[in-house]
Parts: sequence; C-alpha cells; structure tokens
Amino acid sequence: MDHSFQPSQEGAPTRSFLFRAVGLFTGDMHLWGEWVKRQAVVIQMLDWICRGVAQVMLVNNPLSGLLITAGLFLQNPWEAISVGLYGYNGTLIGILMAVFSAKGSWYWWLLLPNVFMSMLCPVVSSALSSVASKWDLPIFTLPFNILLCLHVAATGANHPYFPQVDIQPKDHLHPPNNSMGSLNIPQLFLSVPVGVGQVYGCDSPWTGGLILLALLLSSPTICFHAIWGSAAGMLSGLALAAPHKDIYSGLWGYNSALCCIAIGGVFYVITWQTHLLALICALFCAYMTAAISKLMSVLALPACTWPFCLSTLIFLLVSSEIPAICRPPLSLVTYPEENRRYQRQLKAWENAQLSLQSSSQEEAKLKDNRGPNVQL
Amino acid sequence: MDHSFQPSQEGAPTRSFLFRAVGLFTGDMHLWGEWVKRQAVVIQMLDWICRGVAQVMLVNNPLSGLLITAGLFLQNPWEAISVGLYGYNGTLIGILMAVFSAKGSWYWWLLLPNVFMSMLCPVVSSALSSVASKWDLPIFTLPFNILLCLHVAATGANHPYFPQVDIQPKDHLHPPNNSMGSLNIPQLFLSVPVGVGQVYGCDSPWTGGLILLALLLSSPTICFHAIWGSAAGMLSGLALAAPHKDIYSGLWGYNSALCCIAIGGVFYVITWQTHLLALICALFCAYMTAAISKLMSVLALPACTWPFCLSTLIFLLVSSEIPAICRPPLSLVTYPEENRRYQRQLKAWENAQLSLQSSSQEEAKLKDNRGPNVQL
Amino acid sequence: MDHSFQPSQEGAPTRSFLFRAVGLFTGDMHLWGEWVKRQAVVIQMLDWICRGVAQVMLVNNPLSGLLITAGLFLQNPWEAISVGLYGYNGTLIGILMAVFSAKGSWYWWLLLPNVFMSMLCPVVSSALSSVASKWDLPIFTLPFNILLCLHVAATGANHPYFPQVDIQPKDHLHPPNNSMGSLNIPQLFLSVPVGVGQVYGCDSPWTGGLILLALLLSSPTICFHAIWGSAAGMLSGLALAAPHKDIYSGLWGYNSALCCIAIGGVFYVITWQTHLLALICALFCAYMTAAISKLMSVLALPACTWPFCLSTLIFLLVSSEIPAICRPPLSLVTYPEENRRYQRQLKAWENAQLSLQSSSQEEAKLKDNRGPNVQL
Repeated sequence: MDHSFQPSQEGAPTRSFLFRAVGLFTGDMHLWGEWVKRQAVVIQMLDWICRGVAQVMLVNNPLSGLLITAGLFLQNPWEAISVGLYGYNGTLIGILMAVFSAKGSWYWWLLLPNVFMSMLCPVVSSALSSVASKWDLPIFTLPFNILLCLHVAATGANHPYFPQVDIQPKDHLHPPNNSMGSLNIPQLFLSVPVGVGQVYGCDSPWTGGLILLALLLSSPTICFHAIWGSAAGMLSGLALAAPHKDIYSGLWGYNSALCCIAIGGVFYVITWQTHLLALICALFCAYMTAAISKLMSVLALPACTWPFCLSTLIFLLVSSEIPAICRPPLSLVTYPEENRRYQRQLKAWENAQLSLQSSSQEEAKLKDNRGPNVQL
Repeated sequence: MDHSFQPSQEGAPTRSFLFRAVGLFTGDMHLWGEWVKRQAVVIQMLDWICRGVAQVMLVNNPLSGLLITAGLFLQNPWEAISVGLYGYNGTLIGILMAVFSAKGSWYWWLLLPNVFMSMLCPVVSSALSSVASKWDLPIFTLPFNILLCLHVAATGANHPYFPQVDIQPKDHLHPPNNSMGSLNIPQLFLSVPVGVGQVYGCDSPWTGGLILLALLLSSPTICFHAIWGSAAGMLSGLALAAPHKDIYSGLWGYNSALCCIAIGGVFYVITWQTHLLALICALFCAYMTAAISKLMSVLALPACTWPFCLSTLIFLLVSSEIPAICRPPLSLVTYPEENRRYQRQLKAWENAQLSLQSSSQEEAKLKDNRGPNVQL
Repeated sequence: MDHSFQPSQEGAPTRSFLFRAVGLFTGDMHLWGEWVKRQAVVIQMLDWICRGVAQVMLVNNPLSGLLITAGLFLQNPWEAISVGLYGYNGTLIGILMAVFSAKGSWYWWLLLPNVFMSMLCPVVSSALSSVASKWDLPIFTLPFNILLCLHVAATGANHPYFPQVDIQPKDHLHPPNNSMGSLNIPQLFLSVPVGVGQVYGCDSPWTGGLILLALLLSSPTICFHAIWGSAAGMLSGLALAAPHKDIYSGLWGYNSALCCIAIGGVFYVITWQTHLLALICALFCAYMTAAISKLMSVLALPACTWPFCLSTLIFLLVSSEIPAICRPPLSLVTYPEENRRYQRQLKAWENAQLSLQSSSQEEAKLKDNRGPNVQL
C-alpha cells in the first residue's frame, strides 16, 4: 500500500517513481514507520518523540515534528529541550509550564513538577478516553489542559518555588484608541502564521512559517485549513473588538487553526460541506476563545487550548444525516488524504456489493425464469 | 384519534360534539397539524414559529404560541419581532440578547450576532442530544443557555459594538429594611403570573396572565403546575431572605415554574406522587437559582434558565422502582393529558395480555384435562 | 461463610475459635448484619445509622461507626447529634452545615434546611448513580459536595437566617515566615491523624486517633492506607509551600487519605501495583486540593471533598491491561481483605476451569486415539 497523497497513481513510470519518493516523506510516513520498527530502540524513540511533537497539530509525521522542533529552537532553545523530553500532551505541558513560569527560562527546578505532571498524563488520558469512547470521540489536548490549569491554580503568581506569570482579570475595558483606522495591515497578515505558531506558545512568524511548512509536508489539506482557521480567528478578533496587540500576537488564531484542521479533513472526510463546517467551527471557536479567556482570567487561569477542545468536541458530536458529512470511525482516522481514499474505497466496495446483489438477484430471477425450462 | 383532554368520551352527542370542537384547539392540536401539512409553505412556517414560541414553556400548540406572542407585544414590540425570527431556543436567544443588550431596543446591529447564534443553535442542540440520548434525556433550553452565556462572556459590559447590561457581583449584603412586616401582599400575589412571564424575560403581570391563558388552552395540568411552581419559587425566595424587589419582579418564579411543568405531567405521567415530586423539584430549583445566580454573577453572567435545566435533569435521572413514578420514553412524550391516556392504554393492554395469558393457560389446562377425554 | 480477614483458616481449633470471634467484629460484620435483620426496627435503624457514619470512610461496619461517633462527641457534642440524624451523605451534610454556619453550634433553626437537604440527598444520589453506572463508577460523596456547595452559595456570609463562615478568596500571598526552619516536627506528625479526622470536619488528634482505631477494627488495609494517604497529603503541602497552620490542621490530609483508601484496596484489589497507584493518587489529590480550594475560594465556596471525588474517579476510569491492576465489578466491592479473597477464588476457579478444559481436551484426544481401537 502506498500512503502518499497524489491523486492519480496510474501516471508515467518516471512520474510514478517521483510520486513514490515524495510519498515516502508525506502523509503519516507509513513505510518509514515500518522500517523504524526493526531498528534500535534509540531510533524508535527519536521517531516517537518527533511524531509526538507533530501530534499537537494532529499530524503524525516524524519529519514534520523535526521541522517544528527546529522552529521552536528558533524561538527559544529552552523550549526545544523541554520538547525533547515529553511526547504529545507531555510536549505541551513541558513547553507551557516553561512559558507561564515567572522565573524565566533555564529554571531547572521546573523539571520536578514537569516530570510528575508527565507521569499523570497517561493516567488522565486513559480516564478521559474511557469517558469519550462512549461517543467515539478523541480527547485531543484535554489532559494537557486539565493538568496545566491544575498546576497554575495550585501554584499561582506568588508561589515561592514555582511562581507563575500573574494573569490579571480582564477588566472589561477596551482601549480607546482601538479604531479600525489604526490597524497595521502587514502585521495583520503576519498574525496568520504567528497564530499557527501560538499552538506551541511561540509568537515568532518564522516559527509559524516553519510549522506551516511541516504541515504542508505531511498533508496540504491540513496546512491550508491551519491558514484558513488562523485567518478566521483573526477576523473574529477584529469583529469582537479585541485589543490589536492580542490579534497581532496570534492569540486569536491558534485555537481556530486547530479547530479548522480537526473538522476540515482529519475527523470528517473532507468535502465542500465539511470544509464549510470547519470554517463555521473556526468562527465559533474564536467566539468561545473570547468567552473562555475572560471567564478563566477571573480564576487567574490561562485559556490554553480549552476553546479548541470544547468547540471541536461539540462539532464532532453533531449527528448529521447528510451523506457528505461523514465521520470515519476513530480507529481508522489518519490524515485527510488517506481518509478520502478510505471513503472512496468504502463507496466503491458498497457499489460493488450493490451491483453484485442486483446481478445475483437478476441471476436468481433468470434462474426462476429458466426454472420451468429446466424442468421441461 | 381524538387528542382532546375530556375524561369521558361516551357522553351525549351534543356534548361530544362540543368536546370534539374544543379538542381541536387544545392539547397539541394534532388534527390542525395534519391539515397544515397540506397547506402552503408560508402557513406551515407560521405554524412552526408559533409552536416554537410555545415550546419554551414545553407546550406544542400554535394557538398558545400566538397568545404568548401577543403577550410579548404587550410588553415590548421589539421583543415580539425578535421572536418571529427564531424558533424555540432561537426564540429565547433573540429575546434575551435584546434584554441584556445595553444599547436599548431597536438596535438593529444586534441581528448580526443573533443570526450567527441561531445558526449555531442546531449544531449545539444536535451535539447535546447525542450526549443526552444515552440516558434518554431531553436537552430543554441548554443550547440557549450555553450560547447566551457565551455571547455575554465574549462581549461584556464595555464592549464597543455589543455592550451588555453590567451584571455586578452580588455583594453578599442583604438590605437592612428587608423585614417580613414590609411585605406588599398584593404585589406578592402578582409575582406569581409575573414569574411565569419572566420565562420570556417579561415583567408585566398582563403578559404573564396571557401566557397562563395560553397554557390553559393547551393543557390545564401545565397551567396549574406553572402557577404552583411560580408560587413555590416565590415562597423559597422569602425563606431565603431574598431582596423583595427580586421576588416581586418574578426572578424567583420562572425557573421553578418551568421545573414544575416538566416534572408534573410532561416528562412523568401525572399522579399524586409525581405531583409531589414536581413541588419538591420547584423548591430545589429555587434553592439552585439562589446559588447559581450568585456564582454566575461573580463571572458577570446571567443565570438564564440554568437552574431549571440542571434541577429538572437531576429529577429526570432518578431511577425509581415505584410504579406510580413512571417516565414514558422521550419519543412518546406529548402533553400531560395525552401522557395519562398513553399510560392507561398501556395498562389496559398489559391487563388484556395478562388475562389473555391466564385464559389461554386455563384453556391449555382445560385442554390438558379434556385431553384424556378426547383420547377416550 | 466466614467474613473475617485471617489469612490461614486451617489453624488449631482454639486459634480458629479466636479468629472466628474476631471475625464477628471485623470486616463488614456480615453475620451481625444477618442477625440484625431479624430484630426490631429500632435496632435495625441504629445499625443503619452507625454503618452510615462509617461509610464516609468507605467502611461498612457498625462498630467502627460507633467509635467514630464517640470521636465526634469528643470534638463537639452538637456534631454528634447532627450525625445521629442522617446517614452517609446526610451525615456529612449535617456535620458540615454546622461547621460552616457562623451562628455557632446549637443553632436549632439549622435543622430546617438540613432536613430539606437530606431529603434531596437520595434524589441527587439516584441521579448521579444513573450517570455513573454507565462506567460502573461509585458516586462517593458527590451528592454531599453538590448539596453543601449549593447551600453555602445560596445563603452566603451575610445571610440574615443562615449566615455562613465567610470564605475569603485566597490572596496569592504566601506568608514570609514560611521557611522550612520554622517547622514544628511533633505537630507535623500529629497532622497525620488530624488529617484523618478532618474527613468529618474535626481537627482534634484524639478524634483522628479514634477514627483510625475504628478503621483498624474493620480492615487493617484501610487503616494503613488512611495513614499513608494523610502523610502523602501533608508532604505535598510542604512541597507546594502551603501555610504551616493549614498543614497542621490536617486540611492537606483528608482528601488524600480518602483517595488512598479508595484506590488502595477498596475499589482495586490490593497488590503492590495498586498500592503504588494509591500513593500516586494521594499525591495527585493533594495537588488537586491546592488547585480546587483556590478556585472555589474565588466563588466563596468550601473545597469539601471535591478533590477526593474527582481524583479517585479519574484513577478508577483508567483502563489498564496489567492483570495486577484488577477492578472487581462495583456490585461485588466490599472491603480490601474480602476483595482479595474474591480475586483468589476467581483465579482458583479459572485455573480449575483451565485444567478441567485441558484434561477434557486430553481425554477427548485419548478418546480420539482410542476411537479406532474401539472400532477395531
């Protein structure tokens, strides 16, 4: 089986070879994964870490993970080191505990609660999975959100050992000079990749760009939806009169980008209808970001990726009878291009079954007709 | 099938005709619904809107919806216009966004987020239904509560485009002149219909009275439970030393009235036991209103109908082995009188089955006894 | 059937008799329970009340309940009277409403809301059970937590009839003189039994000691896990730089002690692996206590046993494939020693089945081999 994403596989031999080579590094790198399984434990672990880093963006590709790690290194080497030590949810906990810590980077004592939290991550994940499996739902970064909020709430701003950045309750006061005229258009455009980078807590556009490149490598559908989602979040921020510096720093984009990826191709088979659904979900998520970040600031908690998790879960729970909005079973979800192929095969198989059935019925009919002839 | 609520159907022909005519306009107006299905789309839509308006009070009757709309017009024409544009949850969102908006009535820009919220209503409803269906529970006005709180939290009091009424944290201070002696008894009696009107955010007793009339038209059981529920809420307010003006304005009554309707007849078959359960639920709901409104005021959110939703869900989840507390399956729930008829039919059918079984057993016994005779 | 917890039952007759006598008063006092069923209603009720009091510590033993009531009497007779009137969740509501009431002890009006809350307890319990049964989970003291928070939120600090102790938002300020050097070591050791006593809202070490004795009577495993859990909570409090007086008064111990009991033996069959899991759960619970008590103090609510309920539920939801982490079905859960016996019997039965199967297979094989011989 070939897991690349080219649409036509019956091309000329040279083109087919090129596609095959590209296919090795795109999608979920299935063949590489098979090869890694036969290698030393160290290589397996590196592969696992890289996949874990990319999994935050719902991408299962070690090369993408490597690119994203490079991007994080660009922003702050401390963060890249933390990343190396944890996978998926652990990754985010590692990075964001470092981000919210007020002691600055390179505060090695932070590794202690980090390790304890990472130990608890599989426990919380397993528990949430037990609950979510009743509705065949993924758990996304919920374990990370729960544990990070727990850590921030348990320590707080004036903690003697692990002080946190002080999160002030948002004071309901919108800055007076927040008019449309003062908008900085180039910064507005930059906020789209910055929003993608904010998934990892980075506000550098270069990091965001590298992450987009990593997404493009694995799946163009994911990459485009990340851009659209980030843009939708940014526009919602403008519509809801958010402070401009929040919009520029990508805080309105990252949840929407994740939503748009999840709904637009990863958990639903991508069609025009689900593409539209993904955009609506991105807008809903931006609305939710505004609400949740204000509510949680009252409790001095960061909003993390709660808006993404909650809004995507709501959109995944929708039970639609439109055949174009099709959700493959959770165990078969891979990446958008593969999901489409799965659906095409399913349809082809169904059609084959139907034609087989009708032909056998016809045959049976013929037999019935012939029956008397035979008897004659 | 006749869907009126008269107890004896085998009366004199003239009385039967009168009952039949009344039956056309009461209950869920089943025959009218059948007739509407064959009419033009515009009439169907009007029917659908009127039913949607009445559904807020768990009543499925277009005439009641019309009466309620008239009541809303009495209070404020702006609100009646908003109502016309949305159904059920959309209705409430439309009205209450207008109520909590600080820009006053006739602020047309409000239609923009209104339309977006109404678009999201079916999405959130479908998602909640997926979850609630595991326990065969209804979702009531939960989608409305969620979306309205989301809107208020996302915008807030000082929002430049969509400012909200500023909800101050309740300051734990009870007014000193809040003694029993200063109670205004007529106003206390008026607070019962006012409480019913507050379901739609109206504090005029006339609106409340019209709504009660609308309920009486569809189902007397619902009407009486609305009155009892509102009164129970008012009494709880007094017992918990609530400010008198909150009690007079019906803020203690509307959640309890809804609870009492839901438990007393709509979702449980009405008996003396479920009637008592409905009253306990109304008291519990009033307690919950006090708690939730205080907690949510800390987050600057309105209490909406959260107390009703939560307390009714708790009382519907109770699994009782008392045969008098019988919950028909959600898909068969209609209105109290019809629910009773359903249960009577079920019982009659069961008895018939039992007698059939015992008679067939006796027959079999007889056969067995006769058996040898036949063989002789 | 013998429900005592001695490991070897085939001892000398005198020893066996002694064990049998001890067995009558330990475990869940199964034989006593059988005897009580044939007695007058008053004795049955007293037995039921005592078991209810002990159930708070997940122990089902009337003697333990009696000892604990004696301990409560030592602390404050008012509290022991409240206890007598309610069972299990009702017990806690009775005690803690008295603890959080600002009117002091012996405030008889408090019985009014107490009775209403106790009436609602079975309703809320039944509703929560309906939800939790989907995952075969117990509901612990969740009904109590919900109803107590409801009562505190509904009344508040300045209530004219039922004023509450004013819970101030924790001000993020850690006392400056909170250094390791100023630690009072004997008080630190005393905080372990005090933490156990705090389950019932008592801060006297004698009460805690009597409760530990009551636990030892029913099940040594539960007693030791209570001590370990309380100690783990106390250490977490030190690690998180909690104010020393909070640690001394056992506020860090009681949730962790309950967690440790629940995971270490009661709901999981006790092995080295589940013992470790219980300790991790106790640490996690202490972390959660810090977080939840701070978040709830913002809403002026007490933390109750929310941390215990939530963290234990998370650890019970974990789906493990390790055979040493075995969770018996909820309906068969009794007490640690009995759970182990149950598992041993299950294993023995399984082995017997296996050997039976293999022997029957061998027999069948033999038969097959003999088959031709017979035919010959």
